[in-house]
Amino acid sequence: MSKPSIPQGTRDFSPEVVRKRQYILSTLRQIFERYGFQPIETPSMENLTTLTGKYGEEGDRLIFKVLNNGLHEKKEAEKEKLNAEWQTLLSKPYATPVVTERALRYDLTIPFARYVVMHRNDIALPFRRYQMQPVWRADRPQKGRYREFWQCDADVVGSTSLINEAELLSIYNDAFRKLQIPVTIKVNSRKLLQGLSEICGHPDKMTDITIALDKLDKIGWSGVTAELGNRGIDNDGIAKLEKVIQVSGTNQEQLANLKGLMQESNAGMAGVKEIEDTLAYFDSLNGGASDNIEVSVSLARGLNYYTGIIAEVICSSPDVKMGSIGGGGRYDDLTGLFGMKDISGVGISFGIDRIYDVMEELGTFPEQLVEGTKAIIINFGGDAELYALGMLNKLRAAGVCSELFPDAAKFDKQMKYANKRSIPYVLIPGEEEIKNNKVSLKNFITGEQQTLSIDEAITVLKEND
Amino acid sequence: MSKPSIPQGTRDFSPEVVRKRQYILSTLRQIFERYGFQPIETPSMENLTTLTGKYGEEGDRLIFKVLNNGLHEKKEAEKEKLNAEWQTLLSKPYATPVVTERALRYDLTIPFARYVVMHRNDIALPFRRYQMQPVWRADRPQKGRYREFWQCDADVVGSTSLINEAELLSIYNDAFRKLQIPVTIKVNSRKLLQGLSEICGHPDKMTDITIALDKLDKIGWSGVTAELGNRGIDNDGIAKLEKVIQVSGTNQEQLANLKGLMQESNAGMAGVKEIEDTLAYFDSLNGGASDNIEVSVSLARGLNYYTGIIAEVICSSPDVKMGSIGGGGRYDDLTGLFGMKDISGVGISFGIDRIYDVMEELGTFPEQLVEGTKAIIINFGGDAELYALGMLNKLRAAGVCSELFPDAAKFDKQMKYANKRSIPYVLIPGEEEIKNNKVSLKNFITGEQQTLSIDEAITVLKEND
Repeated sequence: MSKPSIPQGTRDFSPEVVRKRQYILSTLRQIFERYGFQPIETPSMENLTTLTGKYGEEGDRLIFKVLNNGLHEKKEAEKEKLNAEWQTLLSKPYATPVVTERALRYDLTIPFARYVVMHRNDIALPFRRYQMQPVWRADRPQKGRYREFWQCDADVVGSTSLINEAELLSIYNDAFRKLQIPVTIKVNSRKLLQGLSEICGHPDKMTDITIALDKLDKIGWSGVTAELGNRGIDNDGIAKLEKVIQVSGTNQEQLANLKGLMQESNAGMAGVKEIEDTLAYFDSLNGGASDNIEVSVSLARGLNYYTGIIAEVICSSPDVKMGSIGGGGRYDDLTGLFGMKDISGVGISFGIDRIYDVMEELGTFPEQLVEGTKAIIINFGGDAELYALGMLNKLRAAGVCSELFPDAAKFDKQMKYANKRSIPYVLIPGEEEIKNNKVSLKNFITGEQQTLSIDEAITVLKEND
Repeated sequence: MSKPSIPQGTRDFSPEVVRKRQYILSTLRQIFERYGFQPIETPSMENLTTLTGKYGEEGDRLIFKVLNNGLHEKKEAEKEKLNAEWQTLLSKPYATPVVTERALRYDLTIPFARYVVMHRNDIALPFRRYQMQPVWRADRPQKGRYREFWQCDADVVGSTSLINEAELLSIYNDAFRKLQIPVTIKVNSRKLLQGLSEICGHPDKMTDITIALDKLDKIGWSGVTAELGNRGIDNDGIAKLEKVIQVSGTNQEQLANLKGLMQESNAGMAGVKEIEDTLAYFDSLNGGASDNIEVSVSLARGLNYYTGIIAEVICSSPDVKMGSIGGGGRYDDLTGLFGMKDISGVGISFGIDRIYDVMEELGTFPEQLVEGTKAIIINFGGDAELYALGMLNKLRAAGVCSELFPDAAKFDKQMKYANKRSIPYVLIPGEEEIKNNKVSLKNFITGEQQTLSIDEAITVLKEND
C-alpha cells in the first residue's frame, strides 16, 4: 500500500492550529456582530455559469470544476454531446457545463452578489453581511499560497454613504488591535486614480496607470516610469504623475496638497473629497484619528470592479515580511451581473491564512489557547477506575476540561502521554487516596504535588484557569 | 440574463440559520473540549485514491470528483491517455485519476484514518479527536437529504477500553440534554449479532441477518421473517432469532435474559458482557443510570466496519418524525486501510442538519440567538450624524451590538428597516436631545420611549441582554 498523502496545496490542521484559527475567526465574528453585521453562508459548489466570466480569463482557468456524476449512466444519444464537450475541455480552459455543471467557490464576493439577488425579497437594505468560509483556486502552490484557503469578508450593499467606508476601516482598526498585529491601513480612491489619468493628459489610460502604479512597491518609481512609458504615457504626463505620487506628510497635509494638484479634474477632486469625508466619519466614530490610517495615492488594488474608496492593510512590524493581509473597496453594481441594477456596495476582506502566519511570527496568540485538556486522571484499573469516573463527572460538571486515561497502562506510559499532550495537571487516585476519599494533584510544570479532596482539587484547577 | 440559482441539494444559509447552526456546533464543541477531545480539520479535497473503494460500490458512485485543471495544456502525447480515461468515465462509475486526481470529502471517518496514519509521529495515542466539517455526496436530493451537509464526529483511536464507549455515550447524553432534544440512545454489540447468527445455526450469515434486522423498524417482524427466509435462514433458526429479538424489559432484565439465550455462543456472551461493562462505566461516569440509554438487540447499523459496541440516537418526542440523529460504534483496524495495523477505534457522529430540523420542530433554540443587533441609531444627517457616530463608539465599547443607519433617509424608512431586521431598540438623536447631550431610546416591542443620557441608555441596553 502506498503512503497516504493529501493534494498539493491543501493542509491538515492539527488541534493546536485549529484552536488558533478559531481564535482569529471568533475574534472577527465578535467584532462584526458588534458592528451590526450579520452572518451568511453559501454552498461550496456554485453553478459553473455563476462563476465563469467573473474573474477574468486567468480566474476562469483557476476555478476548480466538479465532474458531473453518473456520466456512465447517460443515454447513448447524449454521449456524442459529451464527447464533443470533452474535446473542448482538452483545447480550451473555459466552462463546459455538460461535463461539469458545478464548480468550487472561488471567492466570497460573487456568491454574495448571487445571494443578494436570489434573496432580494427577504433581506432589508442596506444589507450588512459577513461571511467566513473556505475558497478554492487551482493556483500553483507556494509558500503562503494554498489551493484551499479561508476568506473572511464584510460587505454593505444598498447604501452609498461613506459612513459605511468609515465603519469598515474602523472594523479593520479594531480587529488588528484585538489580534495585536501592528498595521498600516492604506486608503485611496479610484476616483483619484481617474483624476491622475486626467491631469496627466491620458483620461483613457486609467487602467494602464493603475497597473503600473500597483507595482510601485515592487519595482520602485524608476520601474514604474519605464512601464508608464511603455504604456504610452509621455514624459510630460509622467512628470505630472510623479508630482502627485510624491505628495507626503500627514493625511491632512496630503489631502491639502492633492486639492491643489487635482484642481483641473472633477474626478480627482471628488476622490479627495471622498477620502476626506471618510476620514472625518472615521474620526467621529473613534473619538479621534488613528495613526494606523494612511492616505496613499499610489494604492491601486488590482481588481477592476472597484469604483470609489479602496483600502489595503499591511503589517507594519519591521520583523514581518508579508504582502497585504486585508483589502477592499467600493464597487458599484456588482449585483448587476445577476440582473439587479444600481445596488452599490462596499466591502473588506481578511486574509485569514496570512493573518495566522503573521501572528505566529509575532507570537501574539494568547497562551491558554493551546491547552485544551486541563487535567488527566491516571487509570489504575479495577475499583480505582470507577472512583476515577466519579471524579471525572464532578470535574466536568464544574467546567474543568478533563479526561481519564482509558486503559490501566503503566504509570510511566500514562505520564508520558500527559506530557506529550501538554496537559498541565495530573490527578492520581492511589490506594491511600481512595481510602480517604481524596486524590493527589500534581502540577506538571512546577512538579508540585498535594493530596486534596476532590472539591479542593477542583478549586485549584478552576483558580488556575 | 437568466435568474441565478444554486446547485440542487445545496443551500444558502440566512443570518438566522447561520446563528442557529453555530449554536449547535458551539454547544457540541464545548462538550467535546470538556471531555478532553481535540479538534482537527482536514482538506475538503482528498486524493481520489484515498476515498475510492472505502464506501462500497454505491459510495464510489456518489463521490464528487474534481476535474483536473489545465487539461487543455497537456501535451499531445498525453491526450490519448486522457481520451481513454474519458471513455472509461462514460462506461464505468469508478476512479480515473488521470482526469480527476481529487475528490470531495465523502465523510469524516476515512480522512481521520488517513490523518492518523500521516501524523502518527506527532500524535499521542490514545488520540481523542473531534471534527466538524461539511461533506459532499451526489445523492438524489430529497427532504432532509442534501448534497452538501455537515458531519460532526468524535473518535478515540489507540485504546480498546470500554471506558471510551461509555464516554462517547455520555457525550451523546450531555449533548442532547444541552440541546433540549429528548432522545433514546440505542446500544448493541456486533458481537451479539455474531452470536445471533451462531445460535440460529448460520454462523456464516451474520451479514444477511444484520441486513434483515436493520429493516425491523421499517417492515416489522413479518417482513424481516420473509427476508431472512429469502436469505437462507431456516424456520428453526428464525424461531430462535425471534426469541432473542423479543427480549424486553429494563436494560438489566434484557441483559439477564440474553445471557441465558446466548450461552451456546462465545461471541454472543462476549457481546452481552461488553454491553454490561459499558453501561457500568457509563453509570459510574454519570453518578447513576440514564433513562435515555436502551439496550436494543435488533440495532444493526449498516456499516460493515463496526466490530464491537454500536449505538444510534433517535429523537423520542412523539411530535417528531425523523430517522437517527446520531450513530457510531467500535471499529477495528480502520487505519489498516492506510497501512497502520492493529489500531482499534470507536467513534460517534452527530447529524447536524437533522438535529437542526428537530430543534426547529421542537422550538428548542434559545430565544436571544436570533437577535444580533441590539440597537440602531436613526440617521438625521449633518451634525446629528457625527453625534450619532460618537454615540456608536460608546455603545460598541460597552459591548452593545449596534449600528447607525448609514443614510439620512426618511424616518419611516429607517424605522421600517429596524422592524424588518427585528432590532429591539431604536436610538433617536433629535435636535432637542443633541442640545442636551441626550438621546431618546425607544423599545420596539413595548413601544415605550424615554429620553436618557447616553450612559443611561447603555445601562438599559445592557440590563436587557
